[in-house]
Amino acid sequence: MTLLSKTIQGIQPLDATAMDAARARQNNLTKPPGSLGRLESLSIQVAGITGQTQPVVKDKVVITCAGDHGVVAQGISAFPQAVTQQMVYNFLNGGAAINVLARHVGARVVIVDAGVAADMEPQPGLAIRKVAYGTADMSQGPAMSREQAIEAIEAGIQVTNEEIALGLSIVATGDMGIGNTTPSSAIVATITGRPVTEVTGRGTGINDEQLAHKVKVIEKALAVNQPDPADALDILGKIGGFEIGAIAGVVLGAAAHRIPVVIDGLISTAGALIAAGLAPLSRDYMIAAHSSVEIGHRAALDHLGLVPCLDFDLRLGEGTGAALVLSLVEAACKILDEMATFDSAGVSGAV
Amino acid sequence: MTLLSKTIQGIQPLDATAMDAARARQNNLTKPPGSLGRLESLSIQVAGITGQTQPVVKDKVVITCAGDHGVVAQGISAFPQAVTQQMVYNFLNGGAAINVLARHVGARVVIVDAGVAADMEPQPGLAIRKVAYGTADMSQGPAMSREQAIEAIEAGIQVTNEEIALGLSIVATGDMGIGNTTPSSAIVATITGRPVTEVTGRGTGINDEQLAHKVKVIEKALAVNQPDPADALDILGKIGGFEIGAIAGVVLGAAAHRIPVVIDGLISTAGALIAAGLAPLSRDYMIAAHSSVEIGHRAALDHLGLVPCLDFDLRLGEGTGAALVLSLVEAACKILDEMATFDSAGVSGAV
Repeated sequence: MTLLSKTIQGIQPLDATAMDAARARQNNLTKPPGSLGRLESLSIQVAGITGQTQPVVKDKVVITCAGDHGVVAQGISAFPQAVTQQMVYNFLNGGAAINVLARHVGARVVIVDAGVAADMEPQPGLAIRKVAYGTADMSQGPAMSREQAIEAIEAGIQVTNEEIALGLSIVATGDMGIGNTTPSSAIVATITGRPVTEVTGRGTGINDEQLAHKVKVIEKALAVNQPDPADALDILGKIGGFEIGAIAGVVLGAAAHRIPVVIDGLISTAGALIAAGLAPLSRDYMIAAHSSVEIGHRAALDHLGLVPCLDFDLRLGEGTGAALVLSLVEAACKILDEMATFDSAGVSGAV
Repeated sequence: MTLLSKTIQGIQPLDATAMDAARARQNNLTKPPGSLGRLESLSIQVAGITGQTQPVVKDKVVITCAGDHGVVAQGISAFPQAVTQQMVYNFLNGGAAINVLARHVGARVVIVDAGVAADMEPQPGLAIRKVAYGTADMSQGPAMSREQAIEAIEAGIQVTNEEIALGLSIVATGDMGIGNTTPSSAIVATITGRPVTEVTGRGTGINDEQLAHKVKVIEKALAVNQPDPADALDILGKIGGFEIGAIAGVVLGAAAHRIPVVIDGLISTAGALIAAGLAPLSRDYMIAAHSSVEIGHRAALDHLGLVPCLDFDLRLGEGTGAALVLSLVEAACKILDEMATFDSAGVSGAV
């Protein structure tokens, strides 16, 4: 059995008993029942994920997956392709937004080279799992083969398994890849069935004319490749990206080990759509970090039935929104674990 | 000159030069300009508040103001009045939600007894500034005198000044007081001009019949007292609460010392409305923590022109939402201070 199929088969439903116990405890803490809203529901979800009635979130990692995209040849991004590699080095040197936010929330950062179009120097914090030097141009044919799609997903699973071995309570997904809102919007259009115009945004910052061109490139990629909406591997292979596949692998690897996974913005959610296509139960292990400026993101979240935690007008990726939400989930679990009950504090209940 | 008028006169406009410098730096950090959305705007606001181009948020405090309300005699709350005092002891023992969340974000907690209807035992972490043993029943006449209103506000200013002397980068407001959504909704109705039914919610959890009764009690209080919408002291005195006045004082004290103040939910925002009525410039020093379940909260935020950071279905008060947002503001300032620039990281800009 392959790593992918073994991982998919390992994903089980949430633990309803642990969720019931967590819910009962929430209702006995010194506050009106339900008055901590999303903090309560997040803690109950994590109880169901972990099977623990008072889960403790301690070891945190952001796994930021990087890859390049042949479709940049069509001029769909405001930044040159070399920036993917440059930003990976920026991550490794600790100077990027994801480093600042991960430090702030006490999370480590691991970068996965799933398909950067340049050789990366091996160093701590970088997992080199390169499937190829960037995808092929999806507007001319498939971005990658079905075998490469599996390889990309398994790269994400492997890195996640390695992080779990080091100690892991929760994982955040992140992405880096110049041009990667283009395949992400293509995936969202295919899986949600919405028109390309409704799920395509400005990425790092293109103008109206460039946006119209980007929409046409995506429409051409869909016409050329005809991805099967019911076959997630077909979608990832034809119109995806290596880092998107690796993100799907992070989601599946986390879910198979009963670890909550915080999904960042549009690109991460495209990866989550692939994961949910392969293993529908994985959806219950996901926490949507935020609502991105990218218009396709909301459509993807709606399709997955996920409600974002933050609405901060973010559109950077890297895992930045997810890193912030790691801390909110940790706070939610501390509420469940550390608050006094009405009895223990000698506080009267409702009359 | 009284402490209140001295404090009001000390509030100055934001520092436009510092904001311009912070904005310029944000645009040179290794990310597409604007891609960190609210994190960028928060950092620019804090630059303007502090006058520092790269402000550092370090010392954090939650000031939770407590008081009781004579209007509970009308049966407008689900919990008995004794819970105010019991919860203050729960705060001092570290078992309440605000303690858990403040610990999580590394903030200290100070409780202000502005008017609890029982004697509180002096102890560390408790500032006893009791104006009276609870307000009078505002449905029968004024909740307090104009002198008491000033005294309550000055209690908040004094405690804030003491905290500033200990070292303070940012402050969060919080409240405790059984029945205090009732005066808060009355204040919101008066200042925004909206009907009581549109700004009155279920507080700690009352049913439809009790909610209809609560609306009638507030309408009676407004009819009996006729508070002047243009006179914030008149409003606080006639239909306010001691902890609401103290919260207004926290806002004014912070603003006078160029310290950002994170405003919690409905009750804190009622205090912020009083502060903005006394000193319109104080509004620029406010950061709205979250959008409460209490329907009057959104109306109050709209009136102040504040956009909430979190939408987490919170309705507990205590400063819980504001505590979480302390950490988000700290993160925003770290982005501005710690990220690499395009030049320093050797990353190419947009083409």
